[in-house]
Amino acid sequence: MSLLDDLRAAVGAAHVIVDGAKAGYEIDWRKRFQGRALAAVRPGSTNEVAAVVTACRAHGASIVTQGGNTGLVGGSVPDASGQQVVLSTARLNRVRSVDDANLTLVAEAGCVLQRVQEAAAQRGLMFALSLAAEGSCTIGGNLATNAGGTQVLRYGNARELCLGLELVTAEGRIWDGLSGLRKDNTGYDLRDLVIGSEGTLAIITAAALKLHPRPAAVMTALASLPTLAAATALLALAHERLGPGLTGFEVMNAFSLELVRRHFAQLRQPLAPAPWTVLIEHSDAESDVHATAALEGLLGVALERGLIDDTAVASSLEQADAMWHLRESIPLAQSAEGANVKHDIALPVSAIAEFVASTDAALARAFPGVRLVDFGHLGDGNLHYNVQGPSGGAGAAFVAEHEARINAIVYDAVAACGGSFSAEHGIGALKREELAGRKSPVALDMMKAIKRALDPDGVLNPGRVLSPAARP
Amino acid sequence: MSLLDDLRAAVGAAHVIVDGAKAGYEIDWRKRFQGRALAAVRPGSTNEVAAVVTACRAHGASIVTQGGNTGLVGGSVPDASGQQVVLSTARLNRVRSVDDANLTLVAEAGCVLQRVQEAAAQRGLMFALSLAAEGSCTIGGNLATNAGGTQVLRYGNARELCLGLELVTAEGRIWDGLSGLRKDNTGYDLRDLVIGSEGTLAIITAAALKLHPRPAAVMTALASLPTLAAATALLALAHERLGPGLTGFEVMNAFSLELVRRHFAQLRQPLAPAPWTVLIEHSDAESDVHATAALEGLLGVALERGLIDDTAVASSLEQADAMWHLRESIPLAQSAEGANVKHDIALPVSAIAEFVASTDAALARAFPGVRLVDFGHLGDGNLHYNVQGPSGGAGAAFVAEHEARINAIVYDAVAACGGSFSAEHGIGALKREELAGRKSPVALDMMKAIKRALDPDGVLNPGRVLSPAARP
Repeated sequence: MSLLDDLRAAVGAAHVIVDGAKAGYEIDWRKRFQGRALAAVRPGSTNEVAAVVTACRAHGASIVTQGGNTGLVGGSVPDASGQQVVLSTARLNRVRSVDDANLTLVAEAGCVLQRVQEAAAQRGLMFALSLAAEGSCTIGGNLATNAGGTQVLRYGNARELCLGLELVTAEGRIWDGLSGLRKDNTGYDLRDLVIGSEGTLAIITAAALKLHPRPAAVMTALASLPTLAAATALLALAHERLGPGLTGFEVMNAFSLELVRRHFAQLRQPLAPAPWTVLIEHSDAESDVHATAALEGLLGVALERGLIDDTAVASSLEQADAMWHLRESIPLAQSAEGANVKHDIALPVSAIAEFVASTDAALARAFPGVRLVDFGHLGDGNLHYNVQGPSGGAGAAFVAEHEARINAIVYDAVAACGGSFSAEHGIGALKREELAGRKSPVALDMMKAIKRALDPDGVLNPGRVLSPAARP
Repeated sequence: MSLLDDLRAAVGAAHVIVDGAKAGYEIDWRKRFQGRALAAVRPGSTNEVAAVVTACRAHGASIVTQGGNTGLVGGSVPDASGQQVVLSTARLNRVRSVDDANLTLVAEAGCVLQRVQEAAAQRGLMFALSLAAEGSCTIGGNLATNAGGTQVLRYGNARELCLGLELVTAEGRIWDGLSGLRKDNTGYDLRDLVIGSEGTLAIITAAALKLHPRPAAVMTALASLPTLAAATALLALAHERLGPGLTGFEVMNAFSLELVRRHFAQLRQPLAPAPWTVLIEHSDAESDVHATAALEGLLGVALERGLIDDTAVASSLEQADAMWHLRESIPLAQSAEGANVKHDIALPVSAIAEFVASTDAALARAFPGVRLVDFGHLGDGNLHYNVQGPSGGAGAAFVAEHEARINAIVYDAVAACGGSFSAEHGIGALKREELAGRKSPVALDMMKAIKRALDPDGVLNPGRVLSPAARP
């Protein structure tokens, strides 16, 4: 039988897509990565996933697993060979169970993140992963890429919010690791190894997720600051005064909010333009009143110390949402302004102010008139340090001409600070060569050995993260 | 040159121990595992660790890494062959740096946990790993075993408190992964794979650790309860009302505290004997007054609802310490009472009350008069479910005769609830056969493949966690 016949036997002919509908699986949402697949298959159960893997392996074909297809690094679209099989998790979309007393929820890989959040909320609990794509990204993709988002400061990355996985190995075997235990030291940490491996070591089919009690109140504020150093000092003060109540600390430079003002004029900006603006979120186990007092107390001290110049505290959920919406509109405003070069970097918090000052200056020297869109999750040391060409110029031409040199300047500076060139977006296809060139050779060799050990035939997403291994 | 010559060249003759002083490295502190080593070596730097690995590998010798030698499963003492080299991390004992703004600390593997706690405290910060052996266990051992302890509920296991490792591979190469970033998605999670691998995949030489702001106040209380189900209901209420302020939730059955009363009569027990007693710890970012109000508010509601019968709130640090001391005296009281069978199990919190009721009954049927010492970290679903022979009997004889059958009853019941037979103590030598028999064959095969990939020559702690691989 042909591979297509075997796939049809595995999942049913209706779920093996080879016609025009296949196109949607072959390109990422930003339309930066276009491949061609042999077929897209939509298994409806873990057993069917295993059957797909077994069929592909028998025919020497490889598999690209795709969730919500919202990734930024080309990790979930097929290559150009026309020989790969896209395995869509779209039909693995059940919340299997919620255990209130254990504070856990078991969801299948294809569950949209928002569905998971809602299932927790229905029980009066919270699933703390939150990011811009939550209406379309899937929990399987979140885990395969170890997604970050806006609450990492308090609740950790996707990895820290997962207690166990169900997965299918490259041999087509199923491991049920969904026990949902908070402590389990029976052997190597396969869960965390597979999380963040971008579909290259195993296929995640379901996950036991950690829930949290819902805070009684969440308060949000904006503050304007004279310098980025003031923002890191404010962060330290916020840690000290709010403790675990500090659940968000985002920073935006003046140009970020200027772009939002330009392209989304209808969005009200409560504060006058300032060199830097911080969004602070405080979650409180007690009450609105207590939350307000805690946040206003922090801001009062910060004003006294001259760390901040002005502040606006949201007095309603709508105002809080509007503040977050400003922050989340920056990437869209950037796109509206034109092509740009994006970076997703992490640095020790203590190194950020100096990094930005010196790297801004280096880029300005190399590319006069260049405009920096610096924003991100300061509380995690994670900046989206994006570079927009000079005003009035042709953005696309600027990017095409200078992207490689811009990346070299930024990533060299990141490396000099002990930082990471991929904080939360992963490697995929886009940053594979960067990884090969910048990661420690010792770590790379360990990674390659693990890949060979768990996927000796190169069935799972070959050429993503690591270069395809030479066949022995 | 002989291996001993090479080791002397690597670390200096003074640090290659072959005389009587070697004996201390060959036996664990509970004197349950006695081996015989070729030598104990005490490298003074990461480079020296690498040189020791290189020498052992060249001579076909294997290495047992030993930190504070406080483990409970025989993972860090040599086998009986007289051919293994014990690598002691005792001289790798520096706190290399503390970064206040980044909330990180870099410590070498041989640092005693308490030293790390103190170094953080000196900066007004906190390292949140805390366990009974903290005065002698080392951070390297804590990470190699993914230690748990009393604050996992809020801060996670050792794994969640580590942001990066420096390690030496089985080939004697060094990886510096100490960047201390909170987000870094550049490749597979080697950190978490090595954490908890008990010295079998790499040797941890240093770690970048996550610090937290110190709470402004910590309040502790005891409460007596009629049933274990009431304790899990109290836990849910505590989560809801205290949120992240809930930093400890320990449970003790009546016999646990009776043993403490019997063998440590000088320790004051604030509450009258009750079927179950809970110790609750609340950490507060605000003040003593606020902490007291929060904890008393919780206990008031619990009394109203009939979840608890009586309560005592510590009114001083001394009283709080005394409450914790009661809890921590249980294992010593058990030893004083006589030999017993210990279990370190984890279960979904929702399954615990039923598990204890039915397993207590099953053991009582099988061994009339048997006495159960049930206590542990209820907030993590982690019980030390220990079995003491009938009163007046010869403890050692009871254990020798029945241990295997007791373990089978307990572990079968744990498995039926989807639990773990090793929550925080690891596998080592003691539970290796249990792992081989009870872990999913799929997971075991993945573990073996990883072990072969990262340590093909079996240099690192062979025969611990997994059976020694047949040489190819």
